[in-house]
Amino acid sequence: MSILIKNAYILDMVSNEPNIVKKDVFIEKDKIEKISESIDKNAEEVIDGTGKILMPGLVNTHSHLPMSIFKGYKDDKTLMDWLNNAIFPVEDKFENDDFYYNSCLSILEMIKSGTTTCNDMYFGTEKIIEAVEKMGIRANVSWCVTDNSIGDKLDKTREYAKKYNNMDYRIKVLVSFHAPYTCNPETIKLCVNLAKELNTPIHVHLAETMDEVKTIRERYGKTPTEYLNDLNVFDVKTILAHGIYFSDSDIEILKTKDTGISHNPISNCKLSSGICNIKKLHDNNIKIGIGTDGSGSTSTLDMFEEMKLTAYLQKVNTLNPTVIKAYDILKMSTIEGAKVLGLDNEIGTIEEGKKADIILIDIEKSHLIPSNNIVTNLVYSANGADVETSIIDGKVIMKNRKVNCINEKELYTKVLKNVERLL
Amino acid sequence: MSILIKNAYILDMVSNEPNIVKKDVFIEKDKIEKISESIDKNAEEVIDGTGKILMPGLVNTHSHLPMSIFKGYKDDKTLMDWLNNAIFPVEDKFENDDFYYNSCLSILEMIKSGTTTCNDMYFGTEKIIEAVEKMGIRANVSWCVTDNSIGDKLDKTREYAKKYNNMDYRIKVLVSFHAPYTCNPETIKLCVNLAKELNTPIHVHLAETMDEVKTIRERYGKTPTEYLNDLNVFDVKTILAHGIYFSDSDIEILKTKDTGISHNPISNCKLSSGICNIKKLHDNNIKIGIGTDGSGSTSTLDMFEEMKLTAYLQKVNTLNPTVIKAYDILKMSTIEGAKVLGLDNEIGTIEEGKKADIILIDIEKSHLIPSNNIVTNLVYSANGADVETSIIDGKVIMKNRKVNCINEKELYTKVLKNVERLL
Repeated sequence: MSILIKNAYILDMVSNEPNIVKKDVFIEKDKIEKISESIDKNAEEVIDGTGKILMPGLVNTHSHLPMSIFKGYKDDKTLMDWLNNAIFPVEDKFENDDFYYNSCLSILEMIKSGTTTCNDMYFGTEKIIEAVEKMGIRANVSWCVTDNSIGDKLDKTREYAKKYNNMDYRIKVLVSFHAPYTCNPETIKLCVNLAKELNTPIHVHLAETMDEVKTIRERYGKTPTEYLNDLNVFDVKTILAHGIYFSDSDIEILKTKDTGISHNPISNCKLSSGICNIKKLHDNNIKIGIGTDGSGSTSTLDMFEEMKLTAYLQKVNTLNPTVIKAYDILKMSTIEGAKVLGLDNEIGTIEEGKKADIILIDIEKSHLIPSNNIVTNLVYSANGADVETSIIDGKVIMKNRKVNCINEKELYTKVLKNVERLL
Repeated sequence: MSILIKNAYILDMVSNEPNIVKKDVFIEKDKIEKISESIDKNAEEVIDGTGKILMPGLVNTHSHLPMSIFKGYKDDKTLMDWLNNAIFPVEDKFENDDFYYNSCLSILEMIKSGTTTCNDMYFGTEKIIEAVEKMGIRANVSWCVTDNSIGDKLDKTREYAKKYNNMDYRIKVLVSFHAPYTCNPETIKLCVNLAKELNTPIHVHLAETMDEVKTIRERYGKTPTEYLNDLNVFDVKTILAHGIYFSDSDIEILKTKDTGISHNPISNCKLSSGICNIKKLHDNNIKIGIGTDGSGSTSTLDMFEEMKLTAYLQKVNTLNPTVIKAYDILKMSTIEGAKVLGLDNEIGTIEEGKKADIILIDIEKSHLIPSNNIVTNLVYSANGADVETSIIDGKVIMKNRKVNCINEKELYTKVLKNVERLL
């Protein structure tokens, strides 16, 4: 398959300052083959990018795909009330079709709002993989382990990692354990050993709430970060979801490791967890990407919403409007997110040789005119509905807002039928 | 003109708890004439509301319509740098066409995101009124006075108030002065006298920043609220934009007055002003609506974005996820906003006899399925692009996202031509 995109304004996300040029892009199979002022090659599909912004697809560094059905389900509650009385009892009843169709629904929402890669953590992962295959998104997936749910998760992680991780393909299998407070040292050691064996990153929730810090202090006399460090978790590459409560000495540990934070501002607000200090992490050269968390705690998988809130929280929390710039937030959602996932050689920028993960954004709309600054308009004014076309791994997954790989109405019917049984 | 809307899910916003029923709505001229389970009257226009949410149009309690062209213009700066070096020099060059077309663009953005009423404060207001007439939105307008810009603004306020305020019509003229720090006691007294003479509310920025509090303390030895109170501003109904920094004694003053706050969370974050304590205001029975401020400081006029941020800020700032509920936020954007403007007898709920200011929202979308809770889905998951149809003052202003009163592309061309001259 070859695709030629003509005359788009390319925001390539390569440099430290925005670079926007009007060029053509030629895609051959899964890769960006050529970017040039005028390309006249024959292509199986030609897309007119005139007046559109062409940029890297957004990278969601923390998701729970099967949770789509929890949006709006018992909101406005405290975390433990919500988990114990709303979420856990329903998750226990999930069957294969729930994992599959719920994940398709989350992925559909992601595609429709410009996300082309997600980094998922859940269970029932065989069916999540099927959904990822079907929908065409790029994804890291994992079987999330807790003390009470190890079962055959590590074996399945090994089995699927061996199948997928050596392929040049859009699915990768990671090792994942849930959090310091749900995993004892033995569980964590098993995960670290497996991650070393498979040479994959570990995806884990860390330092999300003050309660977590208190609990780990009471149990082990250390911070959550110190707890993981003492178990050699940071010997492998790690993706740390939330990452709000780090002490100065935690930062000293993290800055020397191959680790990255998935910043989840909506979830952090909606569950009243706290505000992550991005500047401090950034000043210590700790990589930061943006993620949504699951639909239960976030209610939207639209990364544009996460970008806005990333800006607003930092600016109001520091009372300094210059503390974070729109372009840096756009980088967190693209190339920096890719770095957090270890995929920056493949995705995150528009460059020749990279995977063709590309979105086109329609900016001829009342809320995006005038284009005084395309970058700030994208971060502060746009939303997911402005994404018109999405190409993932060289395939046109959405064109003019129509997603090709699935019948949307049929999917809604399937999901709603399962919701009726579950909720 | 008569309109019949069939089979919609009506979220009427009347009670203290959400009430959603499937009914028909019949509109005659500018009013909701009948709400009933099945209406078979003939209507000039019939709208199929099947599967749609029908609710009151959103009420934006604080805007600056001609500022649409400032979106993305020199963002990420400190307030004074931004005002003095970005905004003021351009505003000085505004001509009639700028006020008119810029306002049309803001109103178009408002309509496309579900707003049916705005409460504006600016200058060049004759042309803003023309834009409001043209676009069909409901609006309070005002000539905003400062010490340095009184000119004939008070005379014009009187002239236009006499023309519009006694009509049963969608435009009202208010008295407005800019802020305590830009208006000395003489200026403010003139405004209070005029508001009393015309029997209109006063619209003013108040208690927006710590700098303002410091400045007024230095000048007058009191808080901004005390300063206005001592000048009898609160003898008339007031609409106070931002309202972040109130002392306990300020709250004691405000709770006895006919006043309301326009909460502008995006602007308050983007300019690093601070976080308004909604619970405290609410506990003291002070009315609170939501507003966007102008596009310069907000970058979006989408009230759904303001609703989300209203929730997120309160929940994370108090570390209490139950501190504010989605339904209360939806009320702030509808009936409570109407109360802040003194328009609650006319708009803000779906009830027989009220003005027909109605929006229809399409909820068959991946980010709004399932509808476990329509109210929380609207506040946490929806955005302005989900508003499909808008009726204002009994007229269909937008249908299936097409706005009837203006040619969008022609408007963009006009605005961009003026932007080229100005920016």
